[in-house]
Amino acid sequence: MALDKEEMSERVLAIAETLIDSGGAENLKARTIAEQAGIAVGSVYNLFADLDEVHRAVNMRLLDRLGAAGASAMADLKGVKDTRQRLLALAGAYVRFVEAHPGSWPALLAFNRRRALATEPDAYQAQLDQLFEIIAGVLADGGFDLDGDRLRIAARALWSSVHGIVTSGYAAKSARGQADEIWQQIELLVAVFVRGLERGVTFDHV
Amino acid sequence: MALDKEEMSERVLAIAETLIDSGGAENLKARTIAEQAGIAVGSVYNLFADLDEVHRAVNMRLLDRLGAAGASAMADLKGVKDTRQRLLALAGAYVRFVEAHPGSWPALLAFNRRRALATEPDAYQAQLDQLFEIIAGVLADGGFDLDGDRLRIAARALWSSVHGIVTSGYAAKSARGQADEIWQQIELLVAVFVRGLERGVTFDHV
Repeated sequence: MALDKEEMSERVLAIAETLIDSGGAENLKARTIAEQAGIAVGSVYNLFADLDEVHRAVNMRLLDRLGAAGASAMADLKGVKDTRQRLLALAGAYVRFVEAHPGSWPALLAFNRRRALATEPDAYQAQLDQLFEIIAGVLADGGFDLDGDRLRIAARALWSSVHGIVTSGYAAKSARGQADEIWQQIELLVAVFVRGLERGVTFDHV
Repeated sequence: MALDKEEMSERVLAIAETLIDSGGAENLKARTIAEQAGIAVGSVYNLFADLDEVHRAVNMRLLDRLGAAGASAMADLKGVKDTRQRLLALAGAYVRFVEAHPGSWPALLAFNRRRALATEPDAYQAQLDQLFEIIAGVLADGGFDLDGDRLRIAARALWSSVHGIVTSGYAAKSARGQADEIWQQIELLVAVFVRGLERGVTFDHV
């Protein structure tokens, strides 16, 4: 029985994600997708306008999954008010997510870097914004003296920082030492950052 | 007049750096280097055991340049004791360095990620350590309650964070907006981090 359009799209995206995860965006080829899906190359282009649209759809799924991982980390801590503990739970979810998507996540970031986000579809931007909302929400719950703009900048700075710690691998001596090092840096960063927010920063010189 | 060995090495490395900067490590080919240097491919291998050694030598030059940029930023602030201001000067030097080396710096980080640093020559590790020493030195001068281990972790966490902010490009809407966004995140991160250190963090739970 032939798959309907939605089922075929799902199959194409699953194949595309595996291709990207194993070899980056360069590895995403209509011919390979078609071969693995058992369809004609033209059929891929009936489903998606071009390979960029395939990659964007893969990215939407990834962002969805990351959002779910963040929401689940928050749900596990239901009732916990400690900002440090909640941020560390989010950071932990992010570390696991990056490990589980060694090729597709860097490819998503490279995809975003290659184009101005303003030119991307609203749904894509909204998906990205939602992720920052989770972090901003935790910071807002902390009752620190941050207005809306500062909250958003702080949320993005924290995410970028944890991202940098996870991916820089600058101080790696071994795989095991690397994992320990990453977590020590994250724990220190989050602890010091939350302490700084508690103390309150006058932003007039910033 | 033929160049001596050292002059030829310098020429090879300058060519290699340009190749890496424009196309990453994949772009580094003995044949291209030889052609551009006007020498035989075999002569490249008389100077360097393999392409990894060429890349490592290019990296040494980059680390040297980054160290000099950091030292110069510190020299410009001679007499300034404010930790926030000194860290921001280092961050600014790093932002400019990354912009000036769009391909060769990511290639250095990828080079480091591909191998355990413990297997790298001592001189290479020492060069990396020196960079962190500059940041650790600023933190030590701040008189915070950090022992040697914490100082080193804090220095690496700060560098990784600034690196993540500079390179993630997650919130880019335009090139101009991107530069502003990066600097706002760095300023907020450094201000809050220093405030947190001033307040002092009990690390027993970390």
